[in-house]
Amino acid sequence: MKTADDLFKEFKILSVSEFFKKNADMLGYTGKIRSMTVLVHEMITNALDACEEAGILPEIRVEIDQRGEFHYEISVEDNATGIPLKFITNVFGKMLAGSKAHRNMQSRGQQGIGVSGAVMYSQVTTGQPATIVSSTGEDMWRVKMNLDLQKNTGKIIEKNKIKDNDGWRGTKIIIEAKDVTYNKSRYSPHNYLRMSSIANPHARIEFIEPDGTKIVFPRSSKEMPKPPKIMKLHPKGMSTDDILVMARNCRARKLGSFLRSGLTRVSRKKAEEIEQVSGVSLDKDVGKLTWDEAERIVKAFKIIDFMAPSSEGLIPIGEKNIIKGISLVNPEFSVAITRSPRTYKGGIPFIIEVGLAYGGKNGPGIDIIRYANRSPLVFDQGGCAINEAVKSIDWRRYGVNVESTPLTLFVNVTSTHIPYTSAGKQALAME
Amino acid sequence: MKTADDLFKEFKILSVSEFFKKNADMLGYTGKIRSMTVLVHEMITNALDACEEAGILPEIRVEIDQRGEFHYEISVEDNATGIPLKFITNVFGKMLAGSKAHRNMQSRGQQGIGVSGAVMYSQVTTGQPATIVSSTGEDMWRVKMNLDLQKNTGKIIEKNKIKDNDGWRGTKIIIEAKDVTYNKSRYSPHNYLRMSSIANPHARIEFIEPDGTKIVFPRSSKEMPKPPKIMKLHPKGMSTDDILVMARNCRARKLGSFLRSGLTRVSRKKAEEIEQVSGVSLDKDVGKLTWDEAERIVKAFKIIDFMAPSSEGLIPIGEKNIIKGISLVNPEFSVAITRSPRTYKGGIPFIIEVGLAYGGKNGPGIDIIRYANRSPLVFDQGGCAINEAVKSIDWRRYGVNVESTPLTLFVNVTSTHIPYTSAGKQALAME
Repeated sequence: MKTADDLFKEFKILSVSEFFKKNADMLGYTGKIRSMTVLVHEMITNALDACEEAGILPEIRVEIDQRGEFHYEISVEDNATGIPLKFITNVFGKMLAGSKAHRNMQSRGQQGIGVSGAVMYSQVTTGQPATIVSSTGEDMWRVKMNLDLQKNTGKIIEKNKIKDNDGWRGTKIIIEAKDVTYNKSRYSPHNYLRMSSIANPHARIEFIEPDGTKIVFPRSSKEMPKPPKIMKLHPKGMSTDDILVMARNCRARKLGSFLRSGLTRVSRKKAEEIEQVSGVSLDKDVGKLTWDEAERIVKAFKIIDFMAPSSEGLIPIGEKNIIKGISLVNPEFSVAITRSPRTYKGGIPFIIEVGLAYGGKNGPGIDIIRYANRSPLVFDQGGCAINEAVKSIDWRRYGVNVESTPLTLFVNVTSTHIPYTSAGKQALAME
Repeated sequence: MKTADDLFKEFKILSVSEFFKKNADMLGYTGKIRSMTVLVHEMITNALDACEEAGILPEIRVEIDQRGEFHYEISVEDNATGIPLKFITNVFGKMLAGSKAHRNMQSRGQQGIGVSGAVMYSQVTTGQPATIVSSTGEDMWRVKMNLDLQKNTGKIIEKNKIKDNDGWRGTKIIIEAKDVTYNKSRYSPHNYLRMSSIANPHARIEFIEPDGTKIVFPRSSKEMPKPPKIMKLHPKGMSTDDILVMARNCRARKLGSFLRSGLTRVSRKKAEEIEQVSGVSLDKDVGKLTWDEAERIVKAFKIIDFMAPSSEGLIPIGEKNIIKGISLVNPEFSVAITRSPRTYKGGIPFIIEVGLAYGGKNGPGIDIIRYANRSPLVFDQGGCAINEAVKSIDWRRYGVNVESTPLTLFVNVTSTHIPYTSAGKQALAME
């Protein structure tokens, strides 16, 4: 029989990078085609979000080069703000680091794992560093970097300052990967980029395939989408723990001003109603709020009516743009609708958009193309709430034969919170 | 338009605990019943693994007390080695810490997240600390601890040394949780514990339900399962990156001794074959192994025949014990088989066990009860490879009507590597 001392000799702490290296499938790295598309997805997502936050019309260039059997080099270049040298290793080498995860804002990527995960996949399959070229307009650097997986950090192994940026601003990332393959199936980067282009008509995407073919998905709209806005949280979406974490980190001194400044839709009158229902004084020092008090406040939130959260920070694609986007399938007829914002659990705003195109495509039956915050969902079609919603419709009532009518159905879900069924899954949860 | 400096002001790094707080669904915390069962599952898993590693016949006591609406206290007590004071916060408060994740060994829990995840769920739903009472036989402590989620550490907020341990050795953890509920459905802790007992006939499990009912799942076998063994990795299961990480951390100086001592099934003769096929000298200083050389070695592993990995470290339940276990459904007839070990991808050994019981249960049709390393799989039945395997059988050939024949089918998969479809999912991947 062993003692505690015997057993705890073996005690060890994994870093988050080591965890995701062991569980790369949780990031979507399963199978050669999916892994390739996930790499492109993570790099493009980063590029498009960077442009959108900075208010820049995206010019993206993706190039995939074959290096050997199941061995490719992939590069993605954008024209966003560029990344200051001191942040490069954090952006591309530290998991759970980023500017997105902790803010209530619509973005394509959300977890702060994506592009670091791509660099990790590259490193563990090829042993090669990633190359990052970035110009902020002032400084331009070319950096080779490795990951220190045990420490969850990036390490620069070579850096060169480039004196003449030639007027270029943006970021280019170049990685190598093995255990990936390239083809033209619906699960391929080709289709992924085509779908990205449909949902992002303001982006110009240039794609060089491994055989040298150059495909341009042109910009079909010059209208810059509004940049996403950080939104205050809505009372109906708050938990007791959320309130306490916010209270600890806010600038307000008293509960009343904390509620009014920290949350949306809390007027002076609503604050008084909260005081009345919860029995917690608005003069309470917010730094001394107890669990019990916060819990009473959350209970009051559930009872009191608030205006629905504003959806002004949400950026739908828009009906005109969807029709432009689905014109890529050359339909005989198309129509699109951007539904009014709704709220989930009373506190999380979302917008559903649907486009419908008749004819023009290959093969009969309904094709569903799914998006979350304009990011294509290519995998995990079964089990996705969008799919289930489409299946639940009695199409015969509309004279549509699911097997033979040539329809393309475009669905985009826009929200500050996308309910993926789990990390790495491209399916939305059903509730 | 924004500049890089504007955007990177917001850059922040999340801890792994904050990540899983935001993504608690990835740990299985979705819905009131499932969350309750997951809490019990994590605590029991920890307790059974602790007993098994120490070679102790488990005596487990689970108690669930109702404290309010959707508010419960849950405690699990074991008779394992106890935990030295300095490790308590790491075991129960630091995610990705543990003695399991980095070793090639069969265990119920694998990620080093489980029980810290339970403490996290408790804290974010109730604001209450967890209480840990642990006696190593020498020292006994009663500790109250909180999690510092930003730092991913546990913090002791109160500790009392208990002078007289009264001969007791073991660990008891007590947590409170909200947003959970208790019932007797097949997804409940009651059924979970019943299923645990079936697969762990050497364990005695006592369960006090919220209404005070005491249920004892008795020990039906006094035979202690062999303790799990750390197994050396098999060449067929190695990646280039694995080789290099091992090479960097091993004691051997030359490649030849590294291969023979670090891996299983590599004899002196096989090592020479590896040298010949890969062209890498066995005299190579293993600390200087390059990516290219490691890659050639892995290619050689794929070409060369090796004996299948030993399964001696795997502990199946055993046919006798399965029959004892399924006797709980009072069948008219039962039969069980422990299949011979097989290997997955040539390098990962696994054992499948199946028990079949006819009659005795409630209701007609086939009930499938699924296990991975003796741990019940209660949720996510759809999409689980075990289920799909059962469905793929042409039962009519055996005179079984899937809808009406009263069958209970018990399936346990034993391996050093359980291919869960993703963290928090109780489904095995199909390949």
